[in-house]
Amino acid sequence: MAVPSYRSFPSPLLGMGLNGGQNVPIKESSGDYEHPMDVESFRVAAKSMIDWICDYYDNVESLPVRSELSVGDIRSVLPSEAPTGPESWNKISSDFQEKIMPGVMHWQSPNFYAYFPSAFSFPSLLGDLMSSALSVNGFLWVSSPAATELETVVVDWLGKMMGLPQAFLAIDSEGKRGKGGGVVQTTASECTLVALLAARARIMEGRPLSDTSRLVCYFSDQAHSSVRKACMVAVTPHVRVLPTCHSTGFSMEPALLEAAIKEDLAAGLLPFYMVGTIGTTSSCAVDPIGEMGAIAQKYKLWLHVDGAHAGVAAILPEQRHHFAGVELADSFNTNPHKWLLTTFDCSCIWFRDADPLKAALSLTPAYLRGKGNAYDYQNWEIPVGRRFRSLKLWFVLRAYGQEKLQGFLRHHIRLAETVAALARKDERFEVSAPPRFGLVCFRLKGRSNEDTSALIEAFNKTGKAFLITTDLAGQTVARIACGGFMTQERHVRATWQLIGDTATALFSAPEE
Amino acid sequence: MAVPSYRSFPSPLLGMGLNGGQNVPIKESSGDYEHPMDVESFRVAAKSMIDWICDYYDNVESLPVRSELSVGDIRSVLPSEAPTGPESWNKISSDFQEKIMPGVMHWQSPNFYAYFPSAFSFPSLLGDLMSSALSVNGFLWVSSPAATELETVVVDWLGKMMGLPQAFLAIDSEGKRGKGGGVVQTTASECTLVALLAARARIMEGRPLSDTSRLVCYFSDQAHSSVRKACMVAVTPHVRVLPTCHSTGFSMEPALLEAAIKEDLAAGLLPFYMVGTIGTTSSCAVDPIGEMGAIAQKYKLWLHVDGAHAGVAAILPEQRHHFAGVELADSFNTNPHKWLLTTFDCSCIWFRDADPLKAALSLTPAYLRGKGNAYDYQNWEIPVGRRFRSLKLWFVLRAYGQEKLQGFLRHHIRLAETVAALARKDERFEVSAPPRFGLVCFRLKGRSNEDTSALIEAFNKTGKAFLITTDLAGQTVARIACGGFMTQERHVRATWQLIGDTATALFSAPEE
Repeated sequence: MAVPSYRSFPSPLLGMGLNGGQNVPIKESSGDYEHPMDVESFRVAAKSMIDWICDYYDNVESLPVRSELSVGDIRSVLPSEAPTGPESWNKISSDFQEKIMPGVMHWQSPNFYAYFPSAFSFPSLLGDLMSSALSVNGFLWVSSPAATELETVVVDWLGKMMGLPQAFLAIDSEGKRGKGGGVVQTTASECTLVALLAARARIMEGRPLSDTSRLVCYFSDQAHSSVRKACMVAVTPHVRVLPTCHSTGFSMEPALLEAAIKEDLAAGLLPFYMVGTIGTTSSCAVDPIGEMGAIAQKYKLWLHVDGAHAGVAAILPEQRHHFAGVELADSFNTNPHKWLLTTFDCSCIWFRDADPLKAALSLTPAYLRGKGNAYDYQNWEIPVGRRFRSLKLWFVLRAYGQEKLQGFLRHHIRLAETVAALARKDERFEVSAPPRFGLVCFRLKGRSNEDTSALIEAFNKTGKAFLITTDLAGQTVARIACGGFMTQERHVRATWQLIGDTATALFSAPEE
Repeated sequence: MAVPSYRSFPSPLLGMGLNGGQNVPIKESSGDYEHPMDVESFRVAAKSMIDWICDYYDNVESLPVRSELSVGDIRSVLPSEAPTGPESWNKISSDFQEKIMPGVMHWQSPNFYAYFPSAFSFPSLLGDLMSSALSVNGFLWVSSPAATELETVVVDWLGKMMGLPQAFLAIDSEGKRGKGGGVVQTTASECTLVALLAARARIMEGRPLSDTSRLVCYFSDQAHSSVRKACMVAVTPHVRVLPTCHSTGFSMEPALLEAAIKEDLAAGLLPFYMVGTIGTTSSCAVDPIGEMGAIAQKYKLWLHVDGAHAGVAAILPEQRHHFAGVELADSFNTNPHKWLLTTFDCSCIWFRDADPLKAALSLTPAYLRGKGNAYDYQNWEIPVGRRFRSLKLWFVLRAYGQEKLQGFLRHHIRLAETVAALARKDERFEVSAPPRFGLVCFRLKGRSNEDTSALIEAFNKTGKAFLITTDLAGQTVARIACGGFMTQERHVRATWQLIGDTATALFSAPEE
C-alpha cells in the first residue's frame, strides 16, 4: 500500500516534520551515559511540536475526520524491528507525519460526533504536559504529597460544583475528614468495577466465602458494556439485565427492579449491587435514581450511579432534576475526560463511605507503607502506580471557572436541540429519543435499518464529519454526540445539511 | 502553614510562573462558545512551559529530593471551591510554582533511588505530549487505526528485542497473525489481573461456575502486592504464598511449589495460576522460570511471569539466563515506564495465546463494534477507553535504538555494582542480596533494624538523595534502586559517601 499523502493539511507543515527541519544532533556516549536527545535538543523539538499542535488546531476542521486506511496499512509501511542505533528526531517526526497521521481519527475535529466526545482543552494539555514532565508516581501520599493532596482538593471542588451530598466529599465544611470522598481513576470501566468490589466487600463482611455464589447484580439493558464486564471480572454469578422500552424512554422501570430482587431473595440469592445510569451510551436515557435508591435502601443493596458522560451536567441547576436521589447512592462516577474539557484519562468516582472500597483493595507491604493520616490512593483502585492526573483537572477548573464550564455544557445541549429541531423539520427523518446531554438520535422514517446504516456510511465516507449508529429496541439509529472542544452552531448546521443531501443522493428524492 | 519558599530553585524561574510573566488575555464569550485560552495564548503558555521544563531538568539535581511538607499542608493553602469565573494563566501557573511544587517528590532527580524508577526521557515526553494533543481514543481499531496498528508493531519490536519466543508476537516473520501477541496496559497490577482472568477463563471452560470455589493460585512471599490484590479482585478463594529464604536468594523453591500443587490436587482443589517474578520488589530476586514452567506444563497451570521492573533486562544477552524457560510461560509482563525511558503509563504484556484473555474480557455491543480482522484492544484489558500510548514507546525505541537502550540498562547495572563494592569495603555495612538489575540492598552490620531505619531517615532528611527500606526475612534493609534518567557514577559515589558520613554522625564512629 502507498501511504496516502496528507491531503488537506496546510502547506507550511508539509514535509517539515515536527522540528522545523532542523537536525537535532546526536552525541556520542562516553563513560557517563549520554542521552541521544539532550535538554537543548528537546527545547527545539518541543517548541516545534507546540507550533505543530497550534497549526493542527487551526486546521483540524478542514481534515477528513475518519481515516480511510485499511487494516494492516500502517503496519505494512513500518519496519518489523526497532533500529539498532539512534535515529534522528527529524526522521522520526517526518515518519510520524507521513506514516502515522494518515491513520489518525480526528477526535478533536469540530465535526466529530461519534461515541461520546474525548475531552480536550489547552489548559488540560498543559496539565498533562507538566504531569509527564515531572513524572512522579503518587501511589502513596509520601511518594509525592502534592499529587495526593491536589487530587483530594479538586475532586472535592468538582463534587461541590455538582451539588453532591456532603457525605461524598473528602473534607467537610469544617475541614474535617469524613468517611467518604472521591478519587481519579482511569476510566468509568474501572470505576464500575471498584464500586462492585466495594459492594461485595460490604455484603460479604462476616459471611462465608461460599456466599459469593449467591450474589446478584442488577442493571438495565441500556447500561454500558463495562458494567457487564465488571461482573465478569469479579465472577458475579447472577446478573439481572432489566429490559427497557421506547415508551419509557429507555429508562429503568423500578417495578421490574423490585420484582427481580424479591424473586431472587425468595430463591435464596443475595442481591447486592445495582447500577443506575444517567445518560446511557445509546440514547442518553436517565434511570430513576431516586426510586432505585429507595429500593437499594429497602433491600440493602449498593447503588452505583454511572454518569460517565452526562454526570458532569450536574453542574447545571436546570439539569439537576435528573440527579434527584443521588444522595441515596453509595457511589457516583463521571468522566471529566468525556465532556468536561479534561484530556483522557480522568474519571472521577465518589463514595459515601470509602471503607468497603479500601477493605476490598488495600494490602500494604512494608515497602509501600505510607504516613498514618494521609490518603494513599493506591488503596482506592486496581493499579498501584498512578499519574499526577489532578493537575490537568485543576488547570481546567481554574482556567474556565464554574460559569465558563456551565456555558460549555449548555452550548452543546443547545446544539443538540438545534439538530433535533432540524431533524423534526425534515419529514424524511424521525428523532428516536429526546435530545439530551448533547446527544441526538435519529433515523430515516419508514425505512429499513439497512437504509439508515447505508446513509450514515455514505455520509461518513465524505470525510466531512463522522457519526456512528446504534441499536434502540431493534431499530438502527444514528447518533450525533455534540461535545467537541471546537464544535459551533455552524458545524452542526452544515452537518445536518450534508446528512439531508446524502439522503437525497442515496434515495433519489424526499418521499412526498 | 506558610508554604515554604522554593529553596534552591534557580533564580531566573522564581516568581515568573509558567508563561514568562505575560498575561494571557481572556476573551469575552459571544454566541459561539469561546474558550478562555485560545490557540495563540496556548502557544505562548506552552513554549514558556517547555522552557520551564528545560530549566527544571538543568537544575533538578540540586533540589531537595523529598518534600518535607506534612499531611494537609497543600490543602490548607488552596481554596475550598473552584473559582466562579476564569482565572488568568499567569495566576494559575504562579500558584503551581508556589503552592504545588513544594509538595512534589523529585522522582527524576539523579539522586532518587526509592521504589523502582519511574522512567523519563525527552522523546517519551514528546510522545506523551502528542498523544495528549491528538486526544484520540483507540479502544477499537476503527476508532483511530494508527493507535492500534502502531501498538501492535512496537510491542512486537520490544518483544523481539527481548528475545521473546515467536509465539508471543502478534505477527510472525512471514507477516501472518498468530494466536499470541502483546498489548500496552496501564500498570503491572492490571497485567497480573488480566493474566489471572485469562487463566481462569481457560480452566473454567466447560466447567460449572461452582468450580471457581476450588481455584488455587501460587506465588512466593516475594511477589508484588498486586499479585495478591489480583486474587482479591477475582475472588480466588485459595492462595498459596510460598516461603523464600536468604540462602536461596529469596527465589521460589520449585520443590515447595510442586508439593503444594500435589497437596491441593489431593484435597480436590483446582490449581490454575502461578506467578514467577523476575526482579522482585524487595531485592530483585529471580524465580526459576524454567522449573516453574515445567511444573506448570505438568499440572496444566497458567504461568504468568512478572518482570515489571527487570523484564526489560532481557534486551541484554548477558542477562538472558535469568529468563531461561520463559517460552514455557503463558504470559509475560514488563513496564517500559519503570526502567526503559518511557513515561508512565506504559506496561506491556504478551500472551502465547490471547484467546482465553479475549474470552475473559470481550463483550461487544452494537455501538462499539469494530472491523472483522482488526485488533480491538478494548477486549484485551479492563478499561474500554485507551490513550495513544504506543506513540511514546515508538519515539523512545527509535530515538535510542537498541544499542543505546542496552547501554542505558548496563549503565545502571554497573552503578549498582559500584555501590555494592563501596558497601563491601566499609565494614560497618553488609550487602543483603546480590546487586541485580540496578538494585542494591544493604544494612548496618551487627546492628538492630531500628538503627538501619534511623540511618536512612536521617540520610533522607538531608534532602540530598532519597531511598527507602524494606523487609528481607525479618531484617530491615535499605534499597538503592539505580535507574534514573540522569543518574551518573558521581551521583551514586556521592550518595554512598553521604550514607557513610550520616552513619558516622549518628553512631559516633565506625565500630572497630
